[in-house]
Amino acid sequence: MTQNRQWRLRRRPVGDISAGDLELVTEPVSVPGPGEILVRNVYLSLDPTNRIWMSDQEQYMPPVRIGDVMRGGTIGVVEVSNHPDFAVGDYVRPGIGGWQDYSIARSDGPFPARKLPAIAGLPLTSFMSALGSTGATAYFGLLKIGQPKAGETIVVSAAAGAVGQVVGQIGKILGCRVVGIAGSADKCRYVVDELGFDACIDYRTEDVAAALKKHCPNGIDVDFENVGGTIMDAVIANMNFKGRIALCGLISQYNAKDAVPGPYNFPLILMKRLKVEGFIVLDFAAQTGEFIAAMGPWVASGQVKDRVTVVEGLENAVQSLGLLFSGGNTGKLLVRIGAEKQ
Amino acid sequence: MTQNRQWRLRRRPVGDISAGDLELVTEPVSVPGPGEILVRNVYLSLDPTNRIWMSDQEQYMPPVRIGDVMRGGTIGVVEVSNHPDFAVGDYVRPGIGGWQDYSIARSDGPFPARKLPAIAGLPLTSFMSALGSTGATAYFGLLKIGQPKAGETIVVSAAAGAVGQVVGQIGKILGCRVVGIAGSADKCRYVVDELGFDACIDYRTEDVAAALKKHCPNGIDVDFENVGGTIMDAVIANMNFKGRIALCGLISQYNAKDAVPGPYNFPLILMKRLKVEGFIVLDFAAQTGEFIAAMGPWVASGQVKDRVTVVEGLENAVQSLGLLFSGGNTGKLLVRIGAEKQ
Repeated sequence: MTQNRQWRLRRRPVGDISAGDLELVTEPVSVPGPGEILVRNVYLSLDPTNRIWMSDQEQYMPPVRIGDVMRGGTIGVVEVSNHPDFAVGDYVRPGIGGWQDYSIARSDGPFPARKLPAIAGLPLTSFMSALGSTGATAYFGLLKIGQPKAGETIVVSAAAGAVGQVVGQIGKILGCRVVGIAGSADKCRYVVDELGFDACIDYRTEDVAAALKKHCPNGIDVDFENVGGTIMDAVIANMNFKGRIALCGLISQYNAKDAVPGPYNFPLILMKRLKVEGFIVLDFAAQTGEFIAAMGPWVASGQVKDRVTVVEGLENAVQSLGLLFSGGNTGKLLVRIGAEKQ
Repeated sequence: MTQNRQWRLRRRPVGDISAGDLELVTEPVSVPGPGEILVRNVYLSLDPTNRIWMSDQEQYMPPVRIGDVMRGGTIGVVEVSNHPDFAVGDYVRPGIGGWQDYSIARSDGPFPARKLPAIAGLPLTSFMSALGSTGATAYFGLLKIGQPKAGETIVVSAAAGAVGQVVGQIGKILGCRVVGIAGSADKCRYVVDELGFDACIDYRTEDVAAALKKHCPNGIDVDFENVGGTIMDAVIANMNFKGRIALCGLISQYNAKDAVPGPYNFPLILMKRLKVEGFIVLDFAAQTGEFIAAMGPWVASGQVKDRVTVVEGLENAVQSLGLLFSGGNTGKLLVRIGAEKQ
């Protein structure tokens, strides 16, 4: 009988995740019931929000319960199908597959299994990056929340991250000036030289507020906010009247042990009549077709590139998640759980 | 020659306004030029934003320059008219009349003079309260930014203030549950017993977060925010997914000498996908007709009441402004500069 390795949440991390917060256990693979499919997971998406799910704080989904398999997005291969829409060998998203080798999935419920869209020639990892939830987050957050117009200036923090790299490229396609904020000279070079951002600020070595003033001579119209804290304050200080802040993430404070103050420039939301709106990609699930129709050709043609960092082995998932918080990776961070189909 | 008393800004207040920050001077009345009118001011509006205009901080208009007449909204009577649209004896808003006995006004420019709308039977003070900028702030902020639907729950802070009292009554007309937050038992009685709010929380004696939980059993859909600080944090903690915060004012921090942290619950904007939008009534100037058409009948019929506190004498304007920050008044605060027409 095949074994299923699973990361289970044993206790809620305090601050940074520490050894013993999650445990890697092995159980027999479950048998899919009527209408269900068994999926062998190939790639696991590591996302900042994973850390939120581990905490018992108010959030958009219930936190992962103690003892449960850690929640996470995967793609994999159908190994057993009891549903006519799925064939053995199909690549699918099994809803939220979890941090495990095998998932049972259904075609209904809040997180239904879906076959990957048929776009020839793309690596499988694209469907976990620019064409996955990451890309959809960038697409919907920028277009529906940020609503940039051609000629406007967009700033994106965590610019070389999974979402940020896509946001900036969409911004350039839309005819905007795009300025990134990232955590190293290498990351800045990546988004400017390889992705076509107009400028990038290394927040570890530069005065962000002054650099924003320099690189955004017409002010900032849209902030695609992934970070929060002092970086967001510097952006707010440089925003134009009627600017929009698409609030996607606040990674600077997910590991905080103590209460973190909100932006000191909060009054500028009033003075400049800014709009700040939080969003998550799940809110736009009904518009996935629009996203694929737009992003598919952009990725296939190379107009949107997406760097992906792949860590080998489910056993390395927990320690790899920390890369997101230390700035240790560029682009999308994935764990390869098992081999792709030959 | 008639004299014109004027409050002029002499230096920028640090924290609370202190003696000598403004000075009452007397000058000869100016003579209106071609196309201009001379207005004898009758009522001066005192507003929290007056304090902002005294500060050299980033804001939606330039701060009042040192030496200039203090900016403020007035209504008055035309005494000399060099413009065919205005007759001697007409009641007008002279644009931004300023803290003075007499103003020169024009029918063009960014703040044009306008005759008061003809609504019979209303006291003149209504046009400085529910039918003035105050009422327009309530109307546009609630309807265009808050966008409440019938059956939803609205919370309004500074509920017994000039804007808050109108917000709550519009909310009731729209079929919403309305919960106020105010600074005394008397103010709470006023908004519940006289204005029809469903409940009111005295933030000086009650645990605001707990009281909100009790009085908003279905959560909060719209926050009409006038205050900021810990009160806003308590509201955010009780908001529903996709709630809206119409950010009208942050009076708790206008007098602060040191940097004030933003809301500690800022991450809930993300988690709950809230929308926070700053606004000022000037943004809606083009829609004044809609406002008068809706609010005029409400005020005339008594569906919307507006308590007004009138302080006698321009010489008392500065000390009276402090009432807004100490919670010393209920409803709209006006200064009577001179007599109404007989």
